Amino acid sequence: MTIFTKIINGEIPGYKIAENEHFCAFLDAFPLVKGHTLVVPKVETDKFFDVADELMGEWLLFAKPIARAIEQVIPCNRVGVCVVGLEVPHAHMHLIPINSADDMNFSRSKLELTPDEFKEIQSQIIAAL
Amino acid sequence: MTIFTKIINGEIPGYKIAENEHFCAFLDAFPLVKGHTLVVPKVETDKFFDVADELMGEWLLFAKPIARAIEQVIPCNRVGVCVVGLEVPHAHMHLIPINSADDMNFSRSKLELTPDEFKEIQSQIIAAL
Repeated sequence: MTIFTKIINGEIPGYKIAENEHFCAFLDAFPLVKGHTLVVPKVETDKFFDVADELMGEWLLFAKPIARAIEQVIPCNRVGVCVVGLEVPHAHMHLIPINSADDMNFSRSKLELTPDEFKEIQSQIIAAL
Repeated sequence: MTIFTKIINGEIPGYKIAENEHFCAFLDAFPLVKGHTLVVPKVETDKFFDVADELMGEWLLFAKPIARAIEQVIPCNRVGVCVVGLEVPHAHMHLIPINSADDMNFSRSKLELTPDEFKEIQSQIIAAL
């Protein structure tokens, strides 16, 4: 069971933003910037492009209102999208509010936020949904 | 008219990989790595998440076989996805064969390939489709 499945199941703490039958979105625990969110199918698949077509077709439609909520809450030029997938074998999509391409550079050091900071970002994004 | 529309229309040279009624895929002229491909809706929209739901639902399904063909042709761990969109006001998705997250770092210098190198990569990916 991947760490993402454990967050989705509530077995380890996470800051959920939205959820439906097939997908769950929650704040990245190691954010590049404030508002950095993951959109994850509930079914575990290692590689993004091995995910079933039915989910592939729904993925961006599930992500769209979340990205728009992030864009309302976090000062940014727009919300970028990134799929890397070299660390956790559970396909996931990063939604990252960006002002420059460097805001999506995964070689950068990650932010360290307090639980209160995570909770505040979570409630702001949920309120904007 | 954006530079991507000009490539799609054949008004400026490009290395097309696949095309249907709504989308066109072609090699990025400034690739981070060999095989770096753009997937672009034919309708011009600046921000990715402003693209119409109908296209949003088709986008990854159109990209999937192309990503799999790239993965067959270019030695890599997997094909990553990136949407940045700060330079050309025509929403587009990058498909990038990666071995490390740094292969998707847009701050890196781009490859300079010859027309013959682009043509060879183009024909290999098309053959794998």
